[in-house]
Amino acid sequence: MARNSKHKSKKHHYALPLPGSSPGIVFIDENSLPPKISLHTYNADTYKVQELTNLKGLAQHTADKNLNYWVEIKGFSSAAMFETLSEDWNINKLILEDITRTYQRPKYEEYGAYDFAISRMLYLDEENSLENEQVSFILTKNILFTFQDKYEDCLEPVRHRLSIGKGNIRVGGSSYLMYALMDMIIDAYFAVLSAWSEQLDAIEDRLFDRPDKTIMYDTQLIKRNLITLRRVAWPERDKMNDILRTDSPLVDSQSKMYLRDAYDHCIQIIDMVESLKEISASNIDMYLSIISNRMNEIMKVLTIISSIFIPLTFIAGIYGMNFSREDPITGKILPQNMPELYQEHGYEYTMLVMGLIAVAQVIYFWRKGWFK
Amino acid sequence: MARNSKHKSKKHHYALPLPGSSPGIVFIDENSLPPKISLHTYNADTYKVQELTNLKGLAQHTADKNLNYWVEIKGFSSAAMFETLSEDWNINKLILEDITRTYQRPKYEEYGAYDFAISRMLYLDEENSLENEQVSFILTKNILFTFQDKYEDCLEPVRHRLSIGKGNIRVGGSSYLMYALMDMIIDAYFAVLSAWSEQLDAIEDRLFDRPDKTIMYDTQLIKRNLITLRRVAWPERDKMNDILRTDSPLVDSQSKMYLRDAYDHCIQIIDMVESLKEISASNIDMYLSIISNRMNEIMKVLTIISSIFIPLTFIAGIYGMNFSREDPITGKILPQNMPELYQEHGYEYTMLVMGLIAVAQVIYFWRKGWFK
Amino acid sequence: MARNSKHKSKKHHYALPLPGSSPGIVFIDENSLPPKISLHTYNADTYKVQELTNLKGLAQHTADKNLNYWVEIKGFSSAAMFETLSEDWNINKLILEDITRTYQRPKYEEYGAYDFAISRMLYLDEENSLENEQVSFILTKNILFTFQDKYEDCLEPVRHRLSIGKGNIRVGGSSYLMYALMDMIIDAYFAVLSAWSEQLDAIEDRLFDRPDKTIMYDTQLIKRNLITLRRVAWPERDKMNDILRTDSPLVDSQSKMYLRDAYDHCIQIIDMVESLKEISASNIDMYLSIISNRMNEIMKVLTIISSIFIPLTFIAGIYGMNFSREDPITGKILPQNMPELYQEHGYEYTMLVMGLIAVAQVIYFWRKGWFK
Amino acid sequence: MARNSKHKSKKHHYALPLPGSSPGIVFIDENSLPPKISLHTYNADTYKVQELTNLKGLAQHTADKNLNYWVEIKGFSSAAMFETLSEDWNINKLILEDITRTYQRPKYEEYGAYDFAISRMLYLDEENSLENEQVSFILTKNILFTFQDKYEDCLEPVRHRLSIGKGNIRVGGSSYLMYALMDMIIDAYFAVLSAWSEQLDAIEDRLFDRPDKTIMYDTQLIKRNLITLRRVAWPERDKMNDILRTDSPLVDSQSKMYLRDAYDHCIQIIDMVESLKEISASNIDMYLSIISNRMNEIMKVLTIISSIFIPLTFIAGIYGMNFSREDPITGKILPQNMPELYQEHGYEYTMLVMGLIAVAQVIYFWRKGWFK
Amino acid sequence: MARNSKHKSKKHHYALPLPGSSPGIVFIDENSLPPKISLHTYNADTYKVQELTNLKGLAQHTADKNLNYWVEIKGFSSAAMFETLSEDWNINKLILEDITRTYQRPKYEEYGAYDFAISRMLYLDEENSLENEQVSFILTKNILFTFQDKYEDCLEPVRHRLSIGKGNIRVGGSSYLMYALMDMIIDAYFAVLSAWSEQLDAIEDRLFDRPDKTIMYDTQLIKRNLITLRRVAWPERDKMNDILRTDSPLVDSQSKMYLRDAYDHCIQIIDMVESLKEISASNIDMYLSIISNRMNEIMKVLTIISSIFIPLTFIAGIYGMNFSREDPITGKILPQNMPELYQEHGYEYTMLVMGLIAVAQVIYFWRKGWFK
Repeated sequence: MARNSKHKSKKHHYALPLPGSSPGIVFIDENSLPPKISLHTYNADTYKVQELTNLKGLAQHTADKNLNYWVEIKGFSSAAMFETLSEDWNINKLILEDITRTYQRPKYEEYGAYDFAISRMLYLDEENSLENEQVSFILTKNILFTFQDKYEDCLEPVRHRLSIGKGNIRVGGSSYLMYALMDMIIDAYFAVLSAWSEQLDAIEDRLFDRPDKTIMYDTQLIKRNLITLRRVAWPERDKMNDILRTDSPLVDSQSKMYLRDAYDHCIQIIDMVESLKEISASNIDMYLSIISNRMNEIMKVLTIISSIFIPLTFIAGIYGMNFSREDPITGKILPQNMPELYQEHGYEYTMLVMGLIAVAQVIYFWRKGWFK
Repeated sequence: MARNSKHKSKKHHYALPLPGSSPGIVFIDENSLPPKISLHTYNADTYKVQELTNLKGLAQHTADKNLNYWVEIKGFSSAAMFETLSEDWNINKLILEDITRTYQRPKYEEYGAYDFAISRMLYLDEENSLENEQVSFILTKNILFTFQDKYEDCLEPVRHRLSIGKGNIRVGGSSYLMYALMDMIIDAYFAVLSAWSEQLDAIEDRLFDRPDKTIMYDTQLIKRNLITLRRVAWPERDKMNDILRTDSPLVDSQSKMYLRDAYDHCIQIIDMVESLKEISASNIDMYLSIISNRMNEIMKVLTIISSIFIPLTFIAGIYGMNFSREDPITGKILPQNMPELYQEHGYEYTMLVMGLIAVAQVIYFWRKGWFK
Repeated sequence: MARNSKHKSKKHHYALPLPGSSPGIVFIDENSLPPKISLHTYNADTYKVQELTNLKGLAQHTADKNLNYWVEIKGFSSAAMFETLSEDWNINKLILEDITRTYQRPKYEEYGAYDFAISRMLYLDEENSLENEQVSFILTKNILFTFQDKYEDCLEPVRHRLSIGKGNIRVGGSSYLMYALMDMIIDAYFAVLSAWSEQLDAIEDRLFDRPDKTIMYDTQLIKRNLITLRRVAWPERDKMNDILRTDSPLVDSQSKMYLRDAYDHCIQIIDMVESLKEISASNIDMYLSIISNRMNEIMKVLTIISSIFIPLTFIAGIYGMNFSREDPITGKILPQNMPELYQEHGYEYTMLVMGLIAVAQVIYFWRKGWFK
Repeated sequence: MARNSKHKSKKHHYALPLPGSSPGIVFIDENSLPPKISLHTYNADTYKVQELTNLKGLAQHTADKNLNYWVEIKGFSSAAMFETLSEDWNINKLILEDITRTYQRPKYEEYGAYDFAISRMLYLDEENSLENEQVSFILTKNILFTFQDKYEDCLEPVRHRLSIGKGNIRVGGSSYLMYALMDMIIDAYFAVLSAWSEQLDAIEDRLFDRPDKTIMYDTQLIKRNLITLRRVAWPERDKMNDILRTDSPLVDSQSKMYLRDAYDHCIQIIDMVESLKEISASNIDMYLSIISNRMNEIMKVLTIISSIFIPLTFIAGIYGMNFSREDPITGKILPQNMPELYQEHGYEYTMLVMGLIAVAQVIYFWRKGWFK
Repeated sequence: MARNSKHKSKKHHYALPLPGSSPGIVFIDENSLPPKISLHTYNADTYKVQELTNLKGLAQHTADKNLNYWVEIKGFSSAAMFETLSEDWNINKLILEDITRTYQRPKYEEYGAYDFAISRMLYLDEENSLENEQVSFILTKNILFTFQDKYEDCLEPVRHRLSIGKGNIRVGGSSYLMYALMDMIIDAYFAVLSAWSEQLDAIEDRLFDRPDKTIMYDTQLIKRNLITLRRVAWPERDKMNDILRTDSPLVDSQSKMYLRDAYDHCIQIIDMVESLKEISASNIDMYLSIISNRMNEIMKVLTIISSIFIPLTFIAGIYGMNFSREDPITGKILPQNMPELYQEHGYEYTMLVMGLIAVAQVIYFWRKGWFK
């Protein structure tokens, strides 16, 4: 992980609702991508994908009640496409607004002819920063629409399972496909948490080996990302619970059994997030105590050196004074002035006294445990 | 943002209930503004606004059951106006008290012939300080009264939509208009949060580039404003929930569908507030660790300089002592006194020893990692 | 506010239940005041107050079903009075115990023939310290008993309204009078909170202007008082809720409508307490960061001065050494000893070198931003 | 309170369940005391106590349905006694296990023929450390069994009231006696809290007068004891609530009325515990800020002294250098070397400059407010 | 406990779900152990154990409705074994996935023909680090399957009780055996908590005797382990509650009575975890205050030594200056230069002044309480 990518968290500036715009207005950002529409047609025996250019005439393409359809829509730049959804498919305008304003919380709502759900996809991109995208679902009897505003996602494995027909995926109906996609999204949370957990372990190792100030930055970055993930995981859990408890005929009981499993995964995610948050906090506490301890170390060095040498220097200063034995002007003899300087062993005694003072202080500090 | 506006949070001194005044007494502050009354008359096809001077005769103006009316009242200095509301329109005195004491929490109450609601309008004024105003609603079958104590607000876009007749606003009835105003107010929260979010990002950048003590002040100011916003957002959410669950015939089901959307927005607001609070706290933690680290840096400089030079100065002090080889008075020779001073290379050896001591200490501190 | 009154919080030593005393025993403290009993007799048209010396014969005084009575009792020193209440009025002994042990939480209980309620009265006395007194209510069809152990209170405005007959107070019955007293008590909380809010604002101003250690003391004192108020406000809210939801025939529906208003006030009180607590905490955080910053300032001064002068003093020390060019005893010439001292410009060059070192260090510290 | 008793909290090493022992096994610790069994026989008119040696034949002793019995058992060393309870009285083995493993939480359970309850008795012993003992109750129609593993307790006042027949205690039946004991136990909590509250007040006084490090120790000790008390008070409250809501015919309605009072006391206990915890935390915060402030004081002294004298010492060092006006070897005159030393007023001017520097610094520090 | 085992917490890298794998896929890790299958056949009178190599033909082994069976499976490397469970015993694939992905939360689920439960086994291994393993249960009328991925566990005592037939274990049916195993697992939590509690006590003793930085590390390690245990204990409690409230015919009422006991134990575990967490936090607070205090001590030593000797050294420096009484070049007499040096008692007076300054400072610091 490069330093520059590490020390800045990705900032998400939400496309805020334009204050005063009517509710139920589809929001087409200038950066919206042109739509890519894939129509997956499948049942237990067959599977094919078609790329569509728009949604006109989709009703004919999806008329066979014995087949299941997945209409996968990526990129929202076409207002006409949403127009078609509203007119041909009778989708509520508030839903279309929720699909296009991609900062919604996970939720599940029933509208009679169809159910509407939102998941949030969190995954680490190549630079290890956290992507946070919205996937919207419209579920009808045998058609599932999904909506994403970017082309990249972490859903490829589901497409692969659908194409090879492994497991229940082609026979479980639309609600099972919706489950499979939602479950894939939640599985991606585990991957993210696992990466962060390893980073926290690495930070913890650095704490013991060579604590430096990047520890604080890196831990705070993870903590902040955990906040983002928790903000997603809680409503995700509530959404799962809403689907589990719904009476909607569009969600069959087998899918619900699987969704219960996904619900359990959400709870595990929340558990792990809380644990990692506590571990982050504990790392920060540890780091702060290490800083304090290091300050104590630094101060001990200073205090020991100063306490030993400052008094000695003072003594040397005493005998560096120029009090004179004789006034050079008057020639008066002043025998009281610094007689030590003229003792036969004055110098040696002085050095000895200095040595004793130093030794006494070393013993004092050693007894206080400052050399440990 | 000017420094002086930044470092002081706006202090709201609430107009407290006068202890002992009877309940249900309209409160006219001496600073109250003279009322401006606008009567908006509209249906799908027509729209007109009249400025009224008082509420006398309003019943005649609003008699046509095929039209909808919005009676917009700003400024509370006229006690007569409230008298009229109480007598002609039979509005409960406790409601009038709540309207005029503008520090109420958001709430929704049914009174049979009409419903009563309070929203709080939060927005940043030109000086970036947070305005916190109350908007009260009285909702009847085809008339909506709104009450504000100031003239400025953030509701202009709704008036504009009403005047041009865009969307549902003219056909949705009084409850839809109430929704549109409440939704506008909540949208303004997003704008405020977005501004604070950007300020927090800017603070975070300063944390890494040039941390100084204004970081603490600025972060605490945002944190305090977040507390204010949260105090409003929670009861706002409860109010929305109360309206969603009411049986009141005055709120129709279409408006409720839209209000569910506004309810979701409230939850998003609360989510964002909590996240921003955690980010503030994390910035403060980071700042405090930076202060501590900086203290360590300062102390390291002091300790390195002192530890190197204090012992050297002591050695220089030693050889600055004046122990004498000869007593000037008696002329006695004292060869033990500081013989080093009279060695041929005494000075050079001394300098060498000092150099070695300095080098040894530099190596010691370098090994301890203090130069990093 | 005088300093000495500020730095000590008032300590309440509760009159604890005597361990092992039978429950339902009236508790007469030795400091109890002699009772003052006022009997207010009123209806829409009449109002009179009588001072009674005891409760004997009260039944005759309050026999007229067309009148309302407020029996106001202050001071508990008379055991006989409680005896009368128990015998003539059939008041449960546990209630009498609750009335006399004045550290009860606010509560509301129904006993069939009468309802029992407790409010706690909090107000600031002249010395700005918090008074915390209990007011107990016994509510019957047309008689309201109130009990206080002190003579002072904050209920005068209600007595005044009763005497002049303003508003509903004389026509609303006993339950309305009880509401009016409880509302008055809650209004007093607002006054207290408003005073503290202003004190916190003043503390905040001092934080920016001249932070000193009294900030910590003053903030902690307010925080502790807030804890006391919160301990009262939460059960007060629960009590209000209990009264609102009771089926008791003694509380009529009009009083309940007003009590809903008082209930809203309780919630506002709790909101304000929580906000003020967060503001206190934020002030303390700010103060601690100011202390840390100030420590950094102090250390910077020390480090700059020391780092500049200690090396220079060392150089001066070098050239203060007495290595000799000539052995005074043997007369031997020692030209290697400190030749710098005998250079023509030795002193000037030395001063120049010292100046350069000082300038270099100043530049170094200036670049590190230590002079800001 | 002696220091050594203060600085160590009493450590409770629970008698853990032996892993793998069958459930429902009576646990006889090797330190168990030999049982003391007292049989209190009483009704409104009579009262007598007998000491029994074992429980054999207890059925005959307690056969009279017109009398109430309290079988008080202290000390658990007799396995035979529990055998008798299981066989003669048909007490569930799980209950006997709960009675003998004396680290149970307070609880209340109905078993048809009898009810089972646990209280925890907390009181301060003579050395002011917290005793934490279990009292178990088995309640039948007219017999109450109580079980304690130690001989000391705080229930003497109840025994006294029973012996003198004051209040309801002899006429209220077994459930009233159980209430009286439980209420006595809860009253003892108040005494404990009151003692701690006074200790916290004393600590607070020390904080302002002479803060030292024992403050931290003492406060933490109280905080830890509060944690213990809270762990007991919450389930105690739940237990009371369970008894209040039970349909058990063994608990009559009069006892329930009294238990409601005890329930209120539990809530007050919890309130007080939370308040004292907040006061402890506030004391610790205050203490830490005092340490920080004191550090600032210490550093100010050091910085002022160093900043004033280090530069002066440097100047003195300058003029202590030995640059020579004349090369003693060559006799060369070097007039540029330290001409100040040979000025007529050189010394006086130097002293003056030093004085001015010192004064300037004093003014500088005084202006910075460091002398306050 | 060796230092190296103490300072690193065991890191659990969960076997994450393979993103995109179908749900309901048995997960066979490459490190899975080959299965050991033990079939315990028992009733009140008989008991035998057989080792099986696979589950083929298990139906014949367990056909006798008068016997109870415990099929104990350890090690998951055989995919065929799970195949058999799915086909012969009709076990849901999602259950098999939960069994093999051994990072599930404790839970209890009913599937009609059988019930499924998960417990987590926590115990300290010989190196005192925390083992965290999953035990899965499938409960049918008279057969209990258990699944563990390792061979070691803490369930030996239950096997022993089963083999000797002590207590209810052979007569209580399958649900009683499941209870016995779950209870054993919970009892192991007590042992773990007891060990940590003793470690915290030891840490606390070290805090008072010789606080060093390992205190922080050791406390944080325990705190982190407590987080792990709490993450297990809460869902364990919920699981117990689910079993207590189930209508499943597979759990009989006697087992439920015992499970209520286990449920109480879970609550006690949670209580103890919370207490220990608070004690950890309190130890850390204490440690940090000790570091701060120690810093104050260090700084006091430095400040006292420096403040005393720096001014004295300055005075010595003054009289070490070489201002001259006579210009050696011109021979000019300069009597104002340092006349003190030529006073008869100059040296003695100077020493006296120095002594007085030192004494004054010592008195000053002593008064400030710095020598305590």
